[in-house]
Amino acid sequence: MIVDTLIHNATIVTVDSDFTIIPCGFVAIDGGRIVRVAPVPATGFTAAIETIDARGALLLPGLVNTHSHLPMTLFRGLADDLPLDVWLNSHIFPVEARFINPETVHYGTLLGCMEMLLSGTTTCCDGYFLEDHVAGAVFESGIRAVLGQGVIDFPAPGVPDPSKNIAEAVGFIDKWKDKTDRITPSLFCHSPYTCSLETLKKASRAALTKKVLFQIHVAETKAETNQCLKINGLRPIQYLDSHGLLTENTLLSHCVWVDAADIEIMARRRAGVSHNPQSNMKLASGIAPVTSFLDCGINTGLGTDGCASNNDLDMFQEMGSAARLHKVHDLDPVVMDARTVLEMATIGGARAIGLDHEIGSIEPGKQADLIVIDLSSPHLTPMYNPASHLVYAVKGSDVRDVFVAGEPLVRHHDLVKLDAEKIMQHVCAIAKTIMIS
Amino acid sequence: MIVDTLIHNATIVTVDSDFTIIPCGFVAIDGGRIVRVAPVPATGFTAAIETIDARGALLLPGLVNTHSHLPMTLFRGLADDLPLDVWLNSHIFPVEARFINPETVHYGTLLGCMEMLLSGTTTCCDGYFLEDHVAGAVFESGIRAVLGQGVIDFPAPGVPDPSKNIAEAVGFIDKWKDKTDRITPSLFCHSPYTCSLETLKKASRAALTKKVLFQIHVAETKAETNQCLKINGLRPIQYLDSHGLLTENTLLSHCVWVDAADIEIMARRRAGVSHNPQSNMKLASGIAPVTSFLDCGINTGLGTDGCASNNDLDMFQEMGSAARLHKVHDLDPVVMDARTVLEMATIGGARAIGLDHEIGSIEPGKQADLIVIDLSSPHLTPMYNPASHLVYAVKGSDVRDVFVAGEPLVRHHDLVKLDAEKIMQHVCAIAKTIMIS
Repeated sequence: MIVDTLIHNATIVTVDSDFTIIPCGFVAIDGGRIVRVAPVPATGFTAAIETIDARGALLLPGLVNTHSHLPMTLFRGLADDLPLDVWLNSHIFPVEARFINPETVHYGTLLGCMEMLLSGTTTCCDGYFLEDHVAGAVFESGIRAVLGQGVIDFPAPGVPDPSKNIAEAVGFIDKWKDKTDRITPSLFCHSPYTCSLETLKKASRAALTKKVLFQIHVAETKAETNQCLKINGLRPIQYLDSHGLLTENTLLSHCVWVDAADIEIMARRRAGVSHNPQSNMKLASGIAPVTSFLDCGINTGLGTDGCASNNDLDMFQEMGSAARLHKVHDLDPVVMDARTVLEMATIGGARAIGLDHEIGSIEPGKQADLIVIDLSSPHLTPMYNPASHLVYAVKGSDVRDVFVAGEPLVRHHDLVKLDAEKIMQHVCAIAKTIMIS
Repeated sequence: MIVDTLIHNATIVTVDSDFTIIPCGFVAIDGGRIVRVAPVPATGFTAAIETIDARGALLLPGLVNTHSHLPMTLFRGLADDLPLDVWLNSHIFPVEARFINPETVHYGTLLGCMEMLLSGTTTCCDGYFLEDHVAGAVFESGIRAVLGQGVIDFPAPGVPDPSKNIAEAVGFIDKWKDKTDRITPSLFCHSPYTCSLETLKKASRAALTKKVLFQIHVAETKAETNQCLKINGLRPIQYLDSHGLLTENTLLSHCVWVDAADIEIMARRRAGVSHNPQSNMKLASGIAPVTSFLDCGINTGLGTDGCASNNDLDMFQEMGSAARLHKVHDLDPVVMDARTVLEMATIGGARAIGLDHEIGSIEPGKQADLIVIDLSSPHLTPMYNPASHLVYAVKGSDVRDVFVAGEPLVRHHDLVKLDAEKIMQHVCAIAKTIMIS
């Protein structure tokens, strides 16, 4: 058998169920999938069309970012260090209303995809408006994504009439279902406080009918939780559950202000969670009880959230923050150890978005979504423990090569398919109009 | 007048007292010092020997890392995610006892200096043992540093007899005083719990007599604070103050477990603080009340601590963590805004270590310790606010050029004076002996 690609001589962090690390191994790729993983010398096939020497490098599954709003990459650093209501109402919402359109969504998404690929993310789970244009740009980039058109009970970019929000979201699902392996459509219901009960129910029913992921922001802030208690007499998780809206196809983003009873419900319904520590820190939302999620067996992934509240899409920094934040919060250096955090950023995220049969670990049969980390820098010298290195020392800029479904999208730190210069020029032109507005 | 170097066309973040930002400016350097800072076109001199075009880049003062243990870069990732006592007693102390010697200190320090320079740090404040060998390597690297020989009441590398600890530390000061502009000797007294009262007093007196910075770890953990209360009837800060050990030449590292009365004392004595958020997070030490330090006018710098507890020396990541951690801890997104954090990492740190007359901002007369940040990457596009960018989006790997006293030490991301390959090879050989031990 002749395979498409052989990557060899790497230290392979498989993130399989035994967390197997192969000190000097190879991965053989054929038809976009991993066909063999083992220590060198490479055997089991006769030749490879392309051979990549990853000596002195780490090879791991591509990272999975479980919560993003790709077009918001346009607003990176536009407004920071502000009270949440001022940030949203005086800055983010007005610029979204004025500047989000098919063209800006296209370039904002391409910018986000470039940043994600260059820093080792091979799959993201995104929700925004004009998501059809997000999908077009995502497809162009080659990254793998779960994408959901936004549902909200306010006029939104591309959906001036909120009564059409579910129809738009369903139309998006129908259009992108089975169109390409790389894009899995989903439905992104904004939150329990921006959607009426009727909208929540309709959206959930549509997601169930179409068998897609139902994404929703929940319990991000204390104010939201208190407001829900006041209006509905229930905390957000309990409110959603009381109406049958939590299923194993639900992805709950944030879950900062949840209590033990909420967590028990989340576990019982087998809903997944996206933990977004840097956004929760920067917006001062609070610290999600992630160690309890894990103790209860809840599928938990790691997300950056949109660039306006992070202000980057670097999952390596997200891993570092997740590991350190919970240690200091719990005053326990043992929690959120490197293996746990790395699993969260790969196979855990894949489970949370329902793609763990395809991605999240380096195992035969899975998609060849792989990243190579260059270790030849002072800040990565010496290396005693690959998992520790990946969580506490590696930066996104150390990612040398990125493959999605076996296709090289980054080689030697450069994008293969996208014209970075041109896209950045377009983005800068858009940013200029925003600045002078 | 012909100047040595002209850096022009940059967005200059001066970090002067008005936090002046020059959208397109120049810095003229002569004799290692800044002679002129203004918007382009460059005037006030007739020519420059070297001209550097920093179009599309940010120019800012080199970052000041106020707390490091350079040789511990050798132990990056050797042991993580462990209870503090296990980490120290079963891992760090044993490897220090066996492997710290003049040669390993030399290479560990060079490794640390390389990482710091490549990520934009131009000054560090270090304390360790065999500090004479640290100083030799620091001098070779060209970085600016305040260096203190360690004083501790236990046998230490190079000082098997603790009764000689003060003499060793004073010997170091005498040897390095006035030897080079780049190195300012200091005295590093380990802590109130590892030094007897007699040692603390002698060390403080020696530092005062020699007019050098008196560095000390204080109130890093709750256990330390409780133990001090139990033994001395006073909290660590009060204990030190009751013996007259806090002066304006004192640099207190950590100060996590300090209360309002402690902070009032620290402010009254005009002692400086090194805040080390990532180390405090990773070791689960706690969260220092930094916003109170600033409110009380305490000179506060930012430090990485040693690499064994971080696990890097990247001050950009330290800034990002400092900004985000206090927001979420205080549940207030307004605290630790980008300007405050950037000041802490530059002029604030310079004040805390007593070098603000020389470094920490871009102003005529000061040392030309400058860094150039390349902005031409997707993750730095677009840019609305330079200060926000520096704290929330820039990574150490974006540092393109680094100058210390006008001398280029990094150009186009490469070290000018040090042979990175060779040093990393030596470090890997040392790490190998540690791993098989």
